[in-house]
Amino acid sequence: MRIAVIGAAGRMGKTLIQAIQDANGVELGAAVVEPSSSLIGADAGEVAGVGKLNVTMTGDLSECVADFDALIDFTTPALTVANAAFCAANGKAIIIGTTGLDDDQKAALAKAGETTQVVFAPNMSVGVNLTLKLLSLAAQILGDDYDVEVVEAHHRHKVDSPSGTALRMGEVVAEALGRDLKECAVYGREGQIGPRTQKEIGFETIRAGDVVGEHSVWFATEGERIEIVHKASSRMTFAKGAVRAAAWLESQPAGLYDMQDVLNLK
Amino acid sequence: MRIAVIGAAGRMGKTLIQAIQDANGVELGAAVVEPSSSLIGADAGEVAGVGKLNVTMTGDLSECVADFDALIDFTTPALTVANAAFCAANGKAIIIGTTGLDDDQKAALAKAGETTQVVFAPNMSVGVNLTLKLLSLAAQILGDDYDVEVVEAHHRHKVDSPSGTALRMGEVVAEALGRDLKECAVYGREGQIGPRTQKEIGFETIRAGDVVGEHSVWFATEGERIEIVHKASSRMTFAKGAVRAAAWLESQPAGLYDMQDVLNLK
Amino acid sequence: MRIAVIGAAGRMGKTLIQAIQDANGVELGAAVVEPSSSLIGADAGEVAGVGKLNVTMTGDLSECVADFDALIDFTTPALTVANAAFCAANGKAIIIGTTGLDDDQKAALAKAGETTQVVFAPNMSVGVNLTLKLLSLAAQILGDDYDVEVVEAHHRHKVDSPSGTALRMGEVVAEALGRDLKECAVYGREGQIGPRTQKEIGFETIRAGDVVGEHSVWFATEGERIEIVHKASSRMTFAKGAVRAAAWLESQPAGLYDMQDVLNLK
Amino acid sequence: MRIAVIGAAGRMGKTLIQAIQDANGVELGAAVVEPSSSLIGADAGEVAGVGKLNVTMTGDLSECVADFDALIDFTTPALTVANAAFCAANGKAIIIGTTGLDDDQKAALAKAGETTQVVFAPNMSVGVNLTLKLLSLAAQILGDDYDVEVVEAHHRHKVDSPSGTALRMGEVVAEALGRDLKECAVYGREGQIGPRTQKEIGFETIRAGDVVGEHSVWFATEGERIEIVHKASSRMTFAKGAVRAAAWLESQPAGLYDMQDVLNLK
Repeated sequence: MRIAVIGAAGRMGKTLIQAIQDANGVELGAAVVEPSSSLIGADAGEVAGVGKLNVTMTGDLSECVADFDALIDFTTPALTVANAAFCAANGKAIIIGTTGLDDDQKAALAKAGETTQVVFAPNMSVGVNLTLKLLSLAAQILGDDYDVEVVEAHHRHKVDSPSGTALRMGEVVAEALGRDLKECAVYGREGQIGPRTQKEIGFETIRAGDVVGEHSVWFATEGERIEIVHKASSRMTFAKGAVRAAAWLESQPAGLYDMQDVLNLK
Repeated sequence: MRIAVIGAAGRMGKTLIQAIQDANGVELGAAVVEPSSSLIGADAGEVAGVGKLNVTMTGDLSECVADFDALIDFTTPALTVANAAFCAANGKAIIIGTTGLDDDQKAALAKAGETTQVVFAPNMSVGVNLTLKLLSLAAQILGDDYDVEVVEAHHRHKVDSPSGTALRMGEVVAEALGRDLKECAVYGREGQIGPRTQKEIGFETIRAGDVVGEHSVWFATEGERIEIVHKASSRMTFAKGAVRAAAWLESQPAGLYDMQDVLNLK
Repeated sequence: MRIAVIGAAGRMGKTLIQAIQDANGVELGAAVVEPSSSLIGADAGEVAGVGKLNVTMTGDLSECVADFDALIDFTTPALTVANAAFCAANGKAIIIGTTGLDDDQKAALAKAGETTQVVFAPNMSVGVNLTLKLLSLAAQILGDDYDVEVVEAHHRHKVDSPSGTALRMGEVVAEALGRDLKECAVYGREGQIGPRTQKEIGFETIRAGDVVGEHSVWFATEGERIEIVHKASSRMTFAKGAVRAAAWLESQPAGLYDMQDVLNLK
Repeated sequence: MRIAVIGAAGRMGKTLIQAIQDANGVELGAAVVEPSSSLIGADAGEVAGVGKLNVTMTGDLSECVADFDALIDFTTPALTVANAAFCAANGKAIIIGTTGLDDDQKAALAKAGETTQVVFAPNMSVGVNLTLKLLSLAAQILGDDYDVEVVEAHHRHKVDSPSGTALRMGEVVAEALGRDLKECAVYGREGQIGPRTQKEIGFETIRAGDVVGEHSVWFATEGERIEIVHKASSRMTFAKGAVRAAAWLESQPAGLYDMQDVLNLK
């Protein structure tokens, strides 16, 4: 399977090229950069630091349409929507890790999914998606007797607390336990507040240094505790997930999929 | 459901009585101690430190046969086999956490399972049994690209390394990955040994202080790592599992079950 | 050195007797219980579960005044004050782990310290006291470039958040960095709150299961993080600290000391 | 203080330039690359990704001798020795993170230290050096009653086990406890090996994924455990240590120093 990377000169683009190089069964087919980039004509492998790949960087997706089977797109909502339409029109699969799409833009992806294969996931990490599944299963088996706490850590610059992933973890557990996270979430504890209630889900949000992203969900009762932990160390985790999605798409019919589909976790 | 505890004056027996007190839908029906015990006639709840329960300790299981529906047995192999036969003959369920049975003794339990409900599990902990299921699922999804390491810690007095639970965790992962643990296990690393091989499963065995039991399985690749962790803090974890098994047995037909059945993890 | 334990039939008293048995250079000299206790006359070792020690439990401290050199007291403020006066009058050392004393009661201990050796510490744990020292040293060396976070976990029944020990850890770090904890402490993070400020000290308070007490202080910057962690597993940590204090007192002049003195950490 | 970086186009060189930019009281004075490099004449800040700094890359250290006060050198032993002599002859300080020097080469650094300020440390990380100090102090206070275990994790490609830093940590603890690490180190545990001996120091070596470097030393006894943990996340930790050493050197007389001197930990 030949993959095109768009935004190939950026940090995510370079990481994607490296992930494609490291994977079996896929190869880099095309590398697209901004039309004004001074890197047009350079070898994409050399720019990505993985050695010469004989794929020349181009400023125009339509120029390399014969060179790829699937496009990986971590760009911006407007550009992603245009790329999805292009892929649908040209019989190419598309794997989308772009975030921040509004409802209209999401509808455009669903439309593309009517004629080609589309994977769309705000978090492409295989580990995070697996973790969500493990949390759901654990909560179902353990039930209300186990106290649930979500501990997460990110770098000092992160502006939102808790992280979107931590909140999603809390939601998955709450759903499995028949609770509404809005009602049972606790975001801090201070003072003589009395013992914890059985159904609350606590969030502890650490902000420190350069932590890429750590999430740990505790299930604890008298006698034991289970912790399900995910630690991201680089954006490679997203790149590898995207490449895995591309390889999986090859044998699928047209449709709009997410990472739970790719990982067969539904 | 009325439960009998045998070995009721020992540490596990007392913990079982406490767990029965804490659970819904079950109550202590009988408490059996050694025929020579000076505690015969004492109130089982008072001995266990949970307050008067109006259950008098007895030295003879047959004396209290009318007082219980299920027997919980964490004793010795020979006694357990006799108790299983007694339960089968008298229409009582039996939950067995005894360890060290030989093949003949296990066959005797299977025989009892032909006429009554039997749960037999060397590790009754709900958390450990859930963890085994999570490990199997994680290994299936993650595959060979993730390095697997099993880190465990126990108190300074433990004589075997790694723990039986750690080895079982390794087996479950190895099975899910199509490996033979005997061939891929590594129990220590020392010297200029070169990079790890992709398919080895490393065990790191910590022995220190009074650690009751901690197990952590890592799945790590470039970009991320998942850790599935179990920490036991007291024998209450085994007692609660046994009580959960008892409650589950109430609605089951005769048969020989394990904790994976009780937790519906098969 | 012969030690008397007061409150010898309670859980802390039994643990103290066990700690004395385990230590070198000290032995149990006397065991005092309430005057109304049915255990008066019983062997203190048997009650504590460590085997016969030939020390008979008594209901009156003055009765056994010839049998001990130092008293360990984890009782109540009023009783402790009386015991300290008794020890001062009779030339006995006293080690006090009682909490909740008011200023007058503390002054009474200082008075006792004028004529005999007194150790008074609200937290006798060697590990906690060492940790406070390590935190101070770490903060001095690392300075403002490292973000500080205090993560603590306790059981579901604890009513105050964060723990007194966590707050003390924060104070020690704040002092070393020239900050006022009242101004820089953050007890929870929720919403679009922006990046952390450099001088804030975050507290994350986990409440779950039966955790005896875990404290972890992070110092994190770009490129690395140091964590200093204390985990209590039982009240034995306090008992061992008290016995260590008793052994240390033997060679000290009269005075009022704390655990930083005992451990030579000042 | 104006700093020169040699090897400025490599990964460590770029990280050093970034660390200099982030620090107070120092600035980049010169950036030296190989004489054949195509980057000679480029702006060092732009190459390092921190924006234009108006420092032009040069291929010859002597060309920029007027532009710096101290040289940071993470190169190779032979080049480092030559650079140290150059600095000694020209009144420049030098900070050396080069590894693998033989005894003659180390003697050459000592010679340079007779006429100029030299810091030489195989591990420049502030956190690692602090951790060694904390370990020594902890071991002195805790003594033989606490079991010591050193747990470390590194990426799948590392060829030596345990890491040099883990072994150094073990040595520091062993020295503080009056033990010989060669006699008390245990590098793996397998089978029916009996309880741990009191004076052994266990090493558990994890090899997995892309872990940059994690070290955790446990001190555990009945009732509590202390963990002193260092986690490296990038080579920035070494760059920051080198810059800190440079700033410290400014007010020192000629001499050969290490990071314990820089951090005032002796």
